[in-house]
Amino acid sequence: MVGYAFMGAAHSQGWRTAGRVFDLPLTPRLAAVCGRDGSAVRAAADRLGWAAAETDWRALIERDDVDLVDICTPGDSHAEIAVAALEAGKHVLCEKPLANSVEEAEAMTEVAQLAAARGQVAMTGFNYRRVPAMALARRMIAEGRVGTLRHVRVSYLQDWLVDPSFPLTWRLQKPYAGSGALGDLGAHAVDLAQYLAGEPVAGVSALMETFVRERPIPAGASAGLSGTGGGGVGQVTVDDAALFTGRFASGALASFEATRFATGRKNALKVELNGERGSLAFDLERLNELYFHDQTEPGVSAGFRRILVTEPEHPYLEAWWPPGHGLGYEHTFVHQARDLVHAIAEGTVPAPSFADGLQVQRVLAAVEESAAKNSVYTPVQA
Amino acid sequence: MVGYAFMGAAHSQGWRTAGRVFDLPLTPRLAAVCGRDGSAVRAAADRLGWAAAETDWRALIERDDVDLVDICTPGDSHAEIAVAALEAGKHVLCEKPLANSVEEAEAMTEVAQLAAARGQVAMTGFNYRRVPAMALARRMIAEGRVGTLRHVRVSYLQDWLVDPSFPLTWRLQKPYAGSGALGDLGAHAVDLAQYLAGEPVAGVSALMETFVRERPIPAGASAGLSGTGGGGVGQVTVDDAALFTGRFASGALASFEATRFATGRKNALKVELNGERGSLAFDLERLNELYFHDQTEPGVSAGFRRILVTEPEHPYLEAWWPPGHGLGYEHTFVHQARDLVHAIAEGTVPAPSFADGLQVQRVLAAVEESAAKNSVYTPVQA
Amino acid sequence: MVGYAFMGAAHSQGWRTAGRVFDLPLTPRLAAVCGRDGSAVRAAADRLGWAAAETDWRALIERDDVDLVDICTPGDSHAEIAVAALEAGKHVLCEKPLANSVEEAEAMTEVAQLAAARGQVAMTGFNYRRVPAMALARRMIAEGRVGTLRHVRVSYLQDWLVDPSFPLTWRLQKPYAGSGALGDLGAHAVDLAQYLAGEPVAGVSALMETFVRERPIPAGASAGLSGTGGGGVGQVTVDDAALFTGRFASGALASFEATRFATGRKNALKVELNGERGSLAFDLERLNELYFHDQTEPGVSAGFRRILVTEPEHPYLEAWWPPGHGLGYEHTFVHQARDLVHAIAEGTVPAPSFADGLQVQRVLAAVEESAAKNSVYTPVQA
Amino acid sequence: MVGYAFMGAAHSQGWRTAGRVFDLPLTPRLAAVCGRDGSAVRAAADRLGWAAAETDWRALIERDDVDLVDICTPGDSHAEIAVAALEAGKHVLCEKPLANSVEEAEAMTEVAQLAAARGQVAMTGFNYRRVPAMALARRMIAEGRVGTLRHVRVSYLQDWLVDPSFPLTWRLQKPYAGSGALGDLGAHAVDLAQYLAGEPVAGVSALMETFVRERPIPAGASAGLSGTGGGGVGQVTVDDAALFTGRFASGALASFEATRFATGRKNALKVELNGERGSLAFDLERLNELYFHDQTEPGVSAGFRRILVTEPEHPYLEAWWPPGHGLGYEHTFVHQARDLVHAIAEGTVPAPSFADGLQVQRVLAAVEESAAKNSVYTPVQA
Repeated sequence: MVGYAFMGAAHSQGWRTAGRVFDLPLTPRLAAVCGRDGSAVRAAADRLGWAAAETDWRALIERDDVDLVDICTPGDSHAEIAVAALEAGKHVLCEKPLANSVEEAEAMTEVAQLAAARGQVAMTGFNYRRVPAMALARRMIAEGRVGTLRHVRVSYLQDWLVDPSFPLTWRLQKPYAGSGALGDLGAHAVDLAQYLAGEPVAGVSALMETFVRERPIPAGASAGLSGTGGGGVGQVTVDDAALFTGRFASGALASFEATRFATGRKNALKVELNGERGSLAFDLERLNELYFHDQTEPGVSAGFRRILVTEPEHPYLEAWWPPGHGLGYEHTFVHQARDLVHAIAEGTVPAPSFADGLQVQRVLAAVEESAAKNSVYTPVQA
Repeated sequence: MVGYAFMGAAHSQGWRTAGRVFDLPLTPRLAAVCGRDGSAVRAAADRLGWAAAETDWRALIERDDVDLVDICTPGDSHAEIAVAALEAGKHVLCEKPLANSVEEAEAMTEVAQLAAARGQVAMTGFNYRRVPAMALARRMIAEGRVGTLRHVRVSYLQDWLVDPSFPLTWRLQKPYAGSGALGDLGAHAVDLAQYLAGEPVAGVSALMETFVRERPIPAGASAGLSGTGGGGVGQVTVDDAALFTGRFASGALASFEATRFATGRKNALKVELNGERGSLAFDLERLNELYFHDQTEPGVSAGFRRILVTEPEHPYLEAWWPPGHGLGYEHTFVHQARDLVHAIAEGTVPAPSFADGLQVQRVLAAVEESAAKNSVYTPVQA
Repeated sequence: MVGYAFMGAAHSQGWRTAGRVFDLPLTPRLAAVCGRDGSAVRAAADRLGWAAAETDWRALIERDDVDLVDICTPGDSHAEIAVAALEAGKHVLCEKPLANSVEEAEAMTEVAQLAAARGQVAMTGFNYRRVPAMALARRMIAEGRVGTLRHVRVSYLQDWLVDPSFPLTWRLQKPYAGSGALGDLGAHAVDLAQYLAGEPVAGVSALMETFVRERPIPAGASAGLSGTGGGGVGQVTVDDAALFTGRFASGALASFEATRFATGRKNALKVELNGERGSLAFDLERLNELYFHDQTEPGVSAGFRRILVTEPEHPYLEAWWPPGHGLGYEHTFVHQARDLVHAIAEGTVPAPSFADGLQVQRVLAAVEESAAKNSVYTPVQA
Repeated sequence: MVGYAFMGAAHSQGWRTAGRVFDLPLTPRLAAVCGRDGSAVRAAADRLGWAAAETDWRALIERDDVDLVDICTPGDSHAEIAVAALEAGKHVLCEKPLANSVEEAEAMTEVAQLAAARGQVAMTGFNYRRVPAMALARRMIAEGRVGTLRHVRVSYLQDWLVDPSFPLTWRLQKPYAGSGALGDLGAHAVDLAQYLAGEPVAGVSALMETFVRERPIPAGASAGLSGTGGGGVGQVTVDDAALFTGRFASGALASFEATRFATGRKNALKVELNGERGSLAFDLERLNELYFHDQTEPGVSAGFRRILVTEPEHPYLEAWWPPGHGLGYEHTFVHQARDLVHAIAEGTVPAPSFADGLQVQRVLAAVEESAAKNSVYTPVQA
């Protein structure tokens, strides 16, 4: 695993736990974790349960005891590491967004396809597909319980930038993060929308905004940050919020919002789909619940029902606790690990693949292009 | 009152009740109701409590015992009736949307301004401003409890067109209704957004869609409906859904949605505002509740609180029932009647005025223009 | 109508509105209202729409233009007025609780049964049966959608006595109110439970408590209040809260709570019924919603659904507004007036009858007896 | 660890994870797991991550590499194992309920107190105290934000016995389980109530019921089950539901319900406390949320607020994910492991101690006594 911050800790919990809960065809072994700061990475290895620590990702990739490279770094290094790992014959799990540009994502996808021919798998880490409620929603849509889609609404609301004194971290710098709310939150929104709808977004019209354009540079920030370096203020070079509407190929309308300025909303990834036969609704802040309205029922007793997604018949749930005993955020990484191990063992293409990650990237690029061109409707590159 | 269908019944309940609940400076008298079908309008007069019935709105306007003309007809007749009534020296309450075009709304506003100089009042019937929770929200925003606005989200979701066999009524015909979800639902959304934000929408980018383009013509439909007249199918000439994003002058972002295809959503006018100091959220399906997040509180015990808007300190509530004894939809018309009577007695300009109605119309026109021009960002005419 | 305070205003709204909304076989006429203070009752008559005012209820009863006497006074006068009105040949609507004692209620019921033989109707004003969601719940239970009942839970939570400086009003004095939370709130809870379950409570075990035993006597309080009369403090002689469990004849268990000390709960009458085939849940603070869990559905997509009780197929709703346009508290009185007018016109026994009110009184008496006897299980008098 | 079924799996997840997330003064090592079936326990050891497997709990206790014995067996074996483990010098964690009788619990507590003098700790596994929302609630109550308590309401609703064909497992047999819903669910309810209130329940009045008195004996059931042994039906000898009211020493009233027949409620442990200064509410089905009403706020903007208990300032949360990224059921076991390790390292008495578990047992015994004596109010043994 490369990177051991928030995402690395979550992935580690996934790798440690998957085999303790699910029957896996292969047993994950936490071989080595990699980071630039030697003592910090060794501490992380101990804490998170990795057998070894490396300070150079190239060394990690060369290790014989590493079969799979899990990339949890900022987006600017994804392409280089992923390509190298695939070329070294490793399987790869790469955090989202797949890359900071369409070009990088295309290159990665090309390499992944060559690697697939050699039996390697490459997965993009859109973990929210593995919230049981979202997997159930996908299943219900595939079964026709929503019918012809009319509306897909996905908003991902957070609020950690509301305070103008929040510092200028790497996530607010375009060279590292690629984009702001768009790539961080909007990428999840777009992937979920396409996953659930079962079809790609065809075009978008977008508004993007940076509400707070200068922020204090954190003490000890590397010179790489634009600005005066350590003290003073620097430019925020990514978006604080992105709003976009769109059309699916089928004609369904989509509405997206990604923001870090929705005061009081902590991690509110809200999804709603309306179809001719029914509707589904979800809020990540209540991740064990899926709401379903069945339009085929008599109106006198119809209504949105709260499905508590904790029954053994629900995706992933048979392995967990009795009904009503909910799961949390990190379980998505356990499920991701489980599914990836199955893909490796069975030689199947994992979902979301790098190609799926590339498709999301193309939607994000269309969003940025539309926002730059006065919101004009912009088709997504096919 | 001109018109006595759904809206007319709701207005009648407002007029009958206002003086029974509030201390009014003038006593409303239900003088006469007008409709084209003589026996139907007489039955409506008896049922709804109007002293007389007329079949020609010009006759109604000329009655000496009529001081105020309340217009509850489809949008295509608003301008003609309102202008005539104002010129005849009557006060006017006109249902929303104010008109079917900006030009009509401009003419009406001009006449209303001349009439105002003669002491007449002219009000647009955006009744949702008079939901106590919305009036409270406006008060809290004016007091600074939300602070610098970042996001305004308003969606108005209904589902009564989901079934493709729903007939082609006047509401689906552009000549009568002007537009579809946009003018019916979007007008409310825009008025509320501007009322709450305390500033106008400056520009918009829009997508509009008609999902079901042909519908059965209802038996007995007048020849005026396009199509084969009575039986057969006809063209739907208005939008089923309109999605638009926008900017306020202050830089806050807005997201709007109006649709009649949100399966399972019956009357879900949902509002959320996020500001630097707090957030407010509302859903018309739970109209006695306002949700407030106070960002100035310590994070450890902060959260969206449900204010049950039934306390005597809340707008309009002192006159009603004890705490927790909720109001319903029609109370907005009682409050509208109350406020209009006060404006007449006190010679003040009512809110929303015709000018406010015109401003909404200009936003709707910009939405239609943007949708026709590939969603390009379109400034609202100042 | 006798009494014109909060309840009188609500009843007046019911009488004024019923014929404007529903097709009634008889037209209610608001003949006269009665109260002890002449100028106050004349003002109330004007405000509420009553044609005449009386200061002696005996005079009201003797009026030829009065066919129905609606009793909205405190419980200590119910028996005397109702009996006199029935003996004078009038129909009677009596607010709940029917009386302050079982003996009074028995006498009233006996007189009502004699009067019924003469074609008079006598109804107890348990208005919450006429919340559309509660009428729908009853219908669904009668249709078997809940199945064999296991649990009935009703709590009625208010908080207006939390502040110890709240004054000693008549509602806190046993001679006037009979009891406290028990008769005021518990009576509603018991009536609803029995109505929904379709069977009587067979026995109870109870705890009652008066948390704040002395309160300030309001300025100008009549000498009738125990204590020092105007200023000073007086004894609270009723219960602040009553908790009781019970059994229905069928073996279903019941849990009841009535309190005026549930801080933050304003009018939270919460009901839940669990049966072998399904469950229903309701909260009066969201009175347009009924929650239903259908146990006969596959578990994978089962869950409590929110039925928005605003569809034309729902009880009372055809006469009101389109779906999603909710009703409020006072509509229960409109529905009560409608149903009572039908009972009078059709010569049927209204529900709840005086006998139903007596049955509730017997449950309340068993609660008081159990509480006085160390909570021992106490059968309800048959 | 003794036992490796549902509870054992949950405890294992706690032990494996605590040191990966929290900074612990000691490092837990999963030495050995014990069960009667040799091959099954070896498979469980592999699956759950235990180094060794034992088939005799006495052998487990004698192992030198075992410092702490974690007891996850049915209640009938708790006393014997816990006493032996403590006498062997081990620390003990014992699942709730502490024992199947007060006598056993008293003996265990006595032994634990002797062991404490030798530096051993003994904890009862009431894991729900370690839901962050519950720990936060306790902190807020201790800080005075609820004030003088008036009401404590705890209900624990499940529905897995609604179907009469559900088999007669050990949980439905008094010799193994001690009691039914009372000991399984009611024990949690009572512990939480006492923990949150900060004082013991003083007395109770109770109703208990077994709705379905015979159930099919599961194929292969051991002869120990009453009935015909494998096939046929057997007697249910425990309660399906227990309802009880009570008083705290301070005079606050309590209402409890434990049932396995609340159709549609899967794991609904609902808690509400009302005090003079505020109220708190919680539902385990939404375990990341705590609702708080602050009565000291102006009524105009007061209301129950939803605290999303995922902030770093919240109990246990600093070690986990960013705000809004919720935890699940099993995290309570991670927190339990963390706190127990701290107690061992620091030589403090863990909470809940065996004495706390005994106090709960005494409340349950009073419940059973009251239910057997016609619900008469029964003081809890001091």
